[in-house]
Amino acid sequence: MIQNFKLVIEYDGAAYHGWQRQAGDVSIQSEMEKAIAVMTGQKVTLIGSGRTDAGVHALAQCANFRCDTAFTPETFLKGLNALLPDDIVVKTCMSADIGFHARYHAKGKRYRYCILNRAIPSALLRNYAWHIRKKLDLCAMRDAGAHLIGTHDFKAFQGQGTFVRSTVRRIISFDIDQNDDVIRMDIEGDGFLRFMVRNIVGTLVDVGAEKITPEDFRQILESKSRSRAGITAPPHGLFLVNVSY
Amino acid sequence: MIQNFKLVIEYDGAAYHGWQRQAGDVSIQSEMEKAIAVMTGQKVTLIGSGRTDAGVHALAQCANFRCDTAFTPETFLKGLNALLPDDIVVKTCMSADIGFHARYHAKGKRYRYCILNRAIPSALLRNYAWHIRKKLDLCAMRDAGAHLIGTHDFKAFQGQGTFVRSTVRRIISFDIDQNDDVIRMDIEGDGFLRFMVRNIVGTLVDVGAEKITPEDFRQILESKSRSRAGITAPPHGLFLVNVSY
Repeated sequence: MIQNFKLVIEYDGAAYHGWQRQAGDVSIQSEMEKAIAVMTGQKVTLIGSGRTDAGVHALAQCANFRCDTAFTPETFLKGLNALLPDDIVVKTCMSADIGFHARYHAKGKRYRYCILNRAIPSALLRNYAWHIRKKLDLCAMRDAGAHLIGTHDFKAFQGQGTFVRSTVRRIISFDIDQNDDVIRMDIEGDGFLRFMVRNIVGTLVDVGAEKITPEDFRQILESKSRSRAGITAPPHGLFLVNVSY
Repeated sequence: MIQNFKLVIEYDGAAYHGWQRQAGDVSIQSEMEKAIAVMTGQKVTLIGSGRTDAGVHALAQCANFRCDTAFTPETFLKGLNALLPDDIVVKTCMSADIGFHARYHAKGKRYRYCILNRAIPSALLRNYAWHIRKKLDLCAMRDAGAHLIGTHDFKAFQGQGTFVRSTVRRIISFDIDQNDDVIRMDIEGDGFLRFMVRNIVGTLVDVGAEKITPEDFRQILESKSRSRAGITAPPHGLFLVNVSY
């Protein structure tokens, strides 16, 4: 009987070349498909809600796969976690409607980006936060980030050399707060362009470092010009927190 | 000129055989002494406030070393951090009185122990929390932990095969709280026996799992009998948080 399984997956991206299967590279998708193949004897395609880049982490990536099997979701949950390396964990496995597609049906995503803002780097956060020495102005970053809310053409924050039908996306919320030395940004939207969160963060850091003003940030967004935006923030501070359907 | 330097060090213990230099093993102490030797050309002994076992982390281990050098503390801070692997970070380096000794002069220590208390393990916390599936009773653990406060003979919680002059220690505070799935215990004392925190945590988990009562815990402490206490909690949930002088 062909069944469709929906998975929620947590992973530490440090050791992987991102979500997507690529010849010769170790990816989350390839590790998971390998484990599914061991369990079922079938070559199965695991559909993720979207790619995450090399080094990016996930608290709750969503994915689905269809498979002719009598296994229950509970059997997959236990079996996959027994087979997977310990930096990839299946948090839940559920039966889904046969038509459910983790990418096409995703309605929204939430990302978190962490910055360690102090003079000295951190041994424990070295893979989980972008280390920035210069003290950042959180209020200026918050003011700039407010311009993201709503429906905009985010072309200025799209990775160069990528092509999509539309670069218009809707950002539902942007929050920034600080706990000791760690600045945490949460951004939720109906979808994200390639490198969009990391390019937004790189540009917000320019605001926090007072290289540009919140008004400059707004103008960069409006300009739709990638060359005016800041650098791409490194991947290891980024976490895919939630995918909604 | 012989100077004495006091260091505060953060490290991720996952890759190390503990603090202490041992022939053939990679330790925090040996990595640090190697870096100091590169900077100064001298073979120097780095004195830690105490050992941490293999896999145990530190947010702020303290250590000192004496050295005939004209280097300033600031030079050591920058130089050591440039030379050290990124899972060991010197947070501060200060000039200390020539007599200052990181072990003999330590007045107290604070440790934190983290437990991930949910059915499914965590990819991101795999090296930073002990995964326990069975739901633990936090209130019972708090009641039991209260018996630790004060001056007691902690022989019941001492690692077997270790010998010290006195097994009497004073515990100043014990706090336990939970945030989502993570239980965090903070314990502060004037000193700790080998494996003491991990043996206390292992026994508190027996209380949380309702294998024993808080009153049993009190009796185990009073019995001074290691064989009555619980297992030694694994090292990767333990963090040395602070050393006071």
